[in-house]
Amino acid sequence: MRGVETMATIEFWYEFASTYSYPAAMRIERLAGGAGVAVRWRPFLLGPIFVAKGGADSPFNTDPVKGRYMWRDLTRICAREDIPLRLPPFRFVQNSLKAARIAVAADREPWMKEFFRRVYMANFAEQKDISDDTTLTTILKSLDVDPDKAVAAANTPENKAKLKVQTDEAIARGIFGAPSFLVEDELFWGNDRLEEAIAWAKW
Amino acid sequence: MRGVETMATIEFWYEFASTYSYPAAMRIERLAGGAGVAVRWRPFLLGPIFVAKGGADSPFNTDPVKGRYMWRDLTRICAREDIPLRLPPFRFVQNSLKAARIAVAADREPWMKEFFRRVYMANFAEQKDISDDTTLTTILKSLDVDPDKAVAAANTPENKAKLKVQTDEAIARGIFGAPSFLVEDELFWGNDRLEEAIAWAKW
Repeated sequence: MRGVETMATIEFWYEFASTYSYPAAMRIERLAGGAGVAVRWRPFLLGPIFVAKGGADSPFNTDPVKGRYMWRDLTRICAREDIPLRLPPFRFVQNSLKAARIAVAADREPWMKEFFRRVYMANFAEQKDISDDTTLTTILKSLDVDPDKAVAAANTPENKAKLKVQTDEAIARGIFGAPSFLVEDELFWGNDRLEEAIAWAKW
Repeated sequence: MRGVETMATIEFWYEFASTYSYPAAMRIERLAGGAGVAVRWRPFLLGPIFVAKGGADSPFNTDPVKGRYMWRDLTRICAREDIPLRLPPFRFVQNSLKAARIAVAADREPWMKEFFRRVYMANFAEQKDISDDTTLTTILKSLDVDPDKAVAAANTPENKAKLKVQTDEAIARGIFGAPSFLVEDELFWGNDRLEEAIAWAKW
C-alpha cells in the first residue's frame, strides 16, 4: 500500500471569480478520489496576470462574442454534470480577494474544501456577492467556523503576502488562466482537461 | 431509413493555419461517420477576425506563455490520438489564403476532404510551407487532380468573394476561433468539443 507521502497528487489552481473553475471545483474531489489521486487546492488571483498583460478586465468581458459563447458553453457543461448554475445579476467578474485570502489562511483546516465549494455555489448558483462580508460570514458559520477568527487569520500581513507569493508562483510555473492543474511540472488548463490531468497524475 | 436530406449534419468551420483545427480535421470524419452524422467542411479565415479585434497576429504569438502551453497541449493531444506532429520550423502562423481558396472552389469535388487532410498534414506533420505553390500542386497531383484547373477555379473573382462571404457568415454566426462546429445555431468551439457537437447533432 502506498503511503500518503507517495500518493499521486494533482495541484488544483483555482480563482473564485473564474467561471470554468466552478465546474472543476465541483467535480475534482469525486474524480480524483475515484482514481486514488490526492488534490491540493491552491487559490490564486487572475487579476494581476491579466493586468500584467495589459488587460484590466476578464477577456470574456473585453471580447463580448467570446463571452457570450463562454456562458452558453458553461450552461451546457453544468447541465450535463448536474451542477446548478444561476448567474449573479449584478456583476461579472466578482471581486474574489477576500474569499481568496480566507482560502489561503484555511489551507490546513478540515473545513477548507467545503468552504471553497460553498463560495463557488454562492457565486455561480445562489446569486450572492462573494466580496460581501455577510456572504462569507454566513458560509463560515454554516461550517461551524468562527468567522471572526477566520477573517482575522485571512487579514494578517503574512497571509496577504502568502496569496501574493502564491500568485507569483502560478505565473512562474506557466499558469495564465484558471482553472489550471499541475502534476509536478506538467500543466493542464481548463475544466475540460481535468480528466486528462488526473490520468497523468495516476500514470 | 433516413434520407440524405434529413441526415443529422455538423458544420466544421476550419482554418488551415489553426493548430487545434488539425487534430479536429484528422478525427472528424471517423467520429461523425461512426455516429451517423454528416460533415459539412466550411473553410474560413481567422485573420480578418483577429484584425477586427485589434490583433494582427495569432494570440498564441502575442501571448507567448499561452503559446507555449498550446504547443505542449497539442503535442499531448496528437500523441494520444496517434496523429503525427512535426512543426514547420520556419513560421507560425502559416499563410493559408491560397489553400483556403482552393478548398472553397473544391466544395463539391469528391477529392476535397482528402485535400483538406493533406494540407493539414503538410502544415503540421511534414514541415512544408502551405503558401508555396509547389506544396499545393504536389498535393493536388497526388489526388489525380489537375493543379492548373484547381488553382484557376480558386482564383476567379467569384471564388475569392465566396471565401470572404463565408468568413463574414462565420462572424455573423458567432464564430471567433477555429475549429468551430455548428449544429444549426448551436456553436461549439475547439477540438475538445468535437465529441459533444456530434452528440448534439445526433440528439
